[in-house]
Amino acid sequence: MIDAVVTYLQDHHARFVEELASWLRIPSISTYPEQATEVRRAATWAHEKLVAIGFPVVETITTAGHPLVYAEWLAHPDQPTLLAYGHYDVQPAEPLDEWLSPPFEPAIRDGNMYARGAVDDKGQVMLVLAALEAWAKTTGGLPINVKVLLEGEEEVGGEAIDTYVQTHSARLKADAALICDTHMLSERQPSLVTGLRGILYTEIAMHGARSDLHSGSFGGVAPNPVHALCVLISRLKDADGVIHIPELNAALQAPPSVEKQFWDDDPLDLTGLLLREMGVDELVGESAYPPLERLWARPTLEVHGIRGGFTGEGAKTVIPASALAKVSLRLPAGLQPDEVFAWFEKAVRAYTPAGYRVTVTMLSAGEGLLMSPDNLFIQAAASALESTYGVPPVFTREGGSIPVAALFDQVLQLPVVLMGFGLPDDGLHAPNEKFSLAQFTKGMATVADFLGRLQR
Amino acid sequence: MIDAVVTYLQDHHARFVEELASWLRIPSISTYPEQATEVRRAATWAHEKLVAIGFPVVETITTAGHPLVYAEWLAHPDQPTLLAYGHYDVQPAEPLDEWLSPPFEPAIRDGNMYARGAVDDKGQVMLVLAALEAWAKTTGGLPINVKVLLEGEEEVGGEAIDTYVQTHSARLKADAALICDTHMLSERQPSLVTGLRGILYTEIAMHGARSDLHSGSFGGVAPNPVHALCVLISRLKDADGVIHIPELNAALQAPPSVEKQFWDDDPLDLTGLLLREMGVDELVGESAYPPLERLWARPTLEVHGIRGGFTGEGAKTVIPASALAKVSLRLPAGLQPDEVFAWFEKAVRAYTPAGYRVTVTMLSAGEGLLMSPDNLFIQAAASALESTYGVPPVFTREGGSIPVAALFDQVLQLPVVLMGFGLPDDGLHAPNEKFSLAQFTKGMATVADFLGRLQR
Repeated sequence: MIDAVVTYLQDHHARFVEELASWLRIPSISTYPEQATEVRRAATWAHEKLVAIGFPVVETITTAGHPLVYAEWLAHPDQPTLLAYGHYDVQPAEPLDEWLSPPFEPAIRDGNMYARGAVDDKGQVMLVLAALEAWAKTTGGLPINVKVLLEGEEEVGGEAIDTYVQTHSARLKADAALICDTHMLSERQPSLVTGLRGILYTEIAMHGARSDLHSGSFGGVAPNPVHALCVLISRLKDADGVIHIPELNAALQAPPSVEKQFWDDDPLDLTGLLLREMGVDELVGESAYPPLERLWARPTLEVHGIRGGFTGEGAKTVIPASALAKVSLRLPAGLQPDEVFAWFEKAVRAYTPAGYRVTVTMLSAGEGLLMSPDNLFIQAAASALESTYGVPPVFTREGGSIPVAALFDQVLQLPVVLMGFGLPDDGLHAPNEKFSLAQFTKGMATVADFLGRLQR
Repeated sequence: MIDAVVTYLQDHHARFVEELASWLRIPSISTYPEQATEVRRAATWAHEKLVAIGFPVVETITTAGHPLVYAEWLAHPDQPTLLAYGHYDVQPAEPLDEWLSPPFEPAIRDGNMYARGAVDDKGQVMLVLAALEAWAKTTGGLPINVKVLLEGEEEVGGEAIDTYVQTHSARLKADAALICDTHMLSERQPSLVTGLRGILYTEIAMHGARSDLHSGSFGGVAPNPVHALCVLISRLKDADGVIHIPELNAALQAPPSVEKQFWDDDPLDLTGLLLREMGVDELVGESAYPPLERLWARPTLEVHGIRGGFTGEGAKTVIPASALAKVSLRLPAGLQPDEVFAWFEKAVRAYTPAGYRVTVTMLSAGEGLLMSPDNLFIQAAASALESTYGVPPVFTREGGSIPVAALFDQVLQLPVVLMGFGLPDDGLHAPNEKFSLAQFTKGMATVADFLGRLQR
């Protein structure tokens, strides 16, 4: 049976690439309110695709924010049910002038599809849809029961899916969840993610004088919010990468020794890979911990952006009245973002120099997740990956957060299979984001195989 | 004679205000290359005004940057010659949405003229031109010899006037220079500036990885140039306002005790004035020095702007590849900006964390100045101010830099009279810049009186 499915995938490969390109052309940037219509178009695209595959139930669900797309095909009372998740929204594409081809005009170069959303996450949703289509068109149905839930607010930490899952847990009942929104270690070394950090994303605003001032007339006595913000940020995390939030440090727990050993040894030289991907000679961060532990299990504090005063061409001798920074914390599984926010806010107030007014706002948050590699669904995914790639996957963690994984874990109490086909150099969230078409192809085959293996 | 001149000023006051408004309507922003035509229009306006006053020689001098306007009226071999300086270029007007009336549509409210350039420096040049016109039209000439030199690059620290003065020192020979580009302590307390700090304006660029990165995939090991820039800036100047550039601190000299006494005592409660002007409850800066010393005589280090990463609406989990800051140092008279730049650059390199590439560029520089209050030209200015305001002026320093004053001091070896009619709350370089029309009126009368007093 799986042979016919794989043949179907091969026969229709060019069309699947074209369909992905047509979806990528829709600039569904969820963070820009003026793009709401485009976000909805991307949802409609997915809705129509699910209908075409043959799902008997397909719904576009209106929410307070961007819509959810839900589909179900429950033809086998004796078979398990898989809940497949993905998101059809994308990050902003700025800085636009760094793209070699426009972010919303997909271009194929050197076997890669370049576009905003290519790997994060439209390409990875598309390969799941292709696997589902192949089963449906080849066998007249799916080997197991499948529910599909796609959201349009993943990149902005929106509340819609959270609310929906909380209020529709019976409808979403399943035996496991599949999330294709991560990357594997390399194109030759598949991996499965069994741990995710949570996230807390904040905005800090620093205020000084009533209005902008001339540095010649007031320099030496005037508050300078840009300087105060720099002082604050350098106190929150010092030059050695050490975060100074006492309650957070006290709440951290020692990792399992087997994982700690892998991080210490780094047998696959992932550290070398990181250096090459980033194009740097040395890593930064806490020297007391090995790079993989810093990347996967330690909390992080990053400034994503900072803005204040005059930064145009030339020289303007202004002392600005305010400055702003976007700062996030990545949190090991088990930490509650709300609680960490309280600790963070306390530290921000303690570290702000006298003479300034500071405000901190929580923009979004999500909890982390830890899974056991022994779970049967994870084992099925591992077998499917080995079948496609010829080598068994290694179990890793991911530094990034997928709040929905924590949601499925905590509210639906599902084992979550985090099987992603991105590669580390895909440049997600950056200019020239890409998705390897070879990975796209292998991903379809792997997911199709995974679906078959779940059949009892 | 001076009575007739003053009467002329009163009779033509409304027209002088209209003429100023017409000049202010020209958006002569020297830092924006696309505004070059407007800068030239502002020069032409001044040229035509000088011709109308009756100057027998008026020239618009083409330079590598914006033009200079030069005029001379040398009818009295037995009289002294005054070189009057001003600038017709203005600062950018951003942020535009904070202006109550558009920056280039002059509006009169509550006895003030609101516009970009109102006080800095078109309004102050205009009152000198009015005084010259009044003498010329009333007496058929000027009481002394006058040379006028106006530049269009003051706000960008341009090289044109520097080059011209260096190469035309014979033509610009004079007995003293008059610069109306400062403010007095209050509308009731005139003051004369006898000291100016120099300036060194730089841009710092911090670079990390080859491209922007996703904080989930790389946070904990990736360089974050925004963070490194914050660390650097907080090391250059700490939270207590102390600058950490060892060679600079070693080069500072103790101030004259009479000035130190005035700064310590602050008999006019200028500190209270500063607090009210800034709309703050406390001053910041080096607590080991009184506010007036910090404002007028200590070096300063200010961040005028900072930019890096994502600062739009919403949340983007990017680790940016680079960040930028504009940083200036104000320098007590006697320090050489070039030498200080070498010290600064050394400190920047020493304080940049490992794993980053940093570049520092000097955008502009100017030396400071110290004058003796005993100088005859300064005494004449003091008498003119006392005649107009009814109280003698106090001698102060100015925190800001006027590079041309140092140029006249060093190259032409002229005593420099820094007589300004701005008020501390004029908001120069900020939104809603204004010039008090009462000060405009008194300024004309004072300059006219000053010109008469210079007659032998």
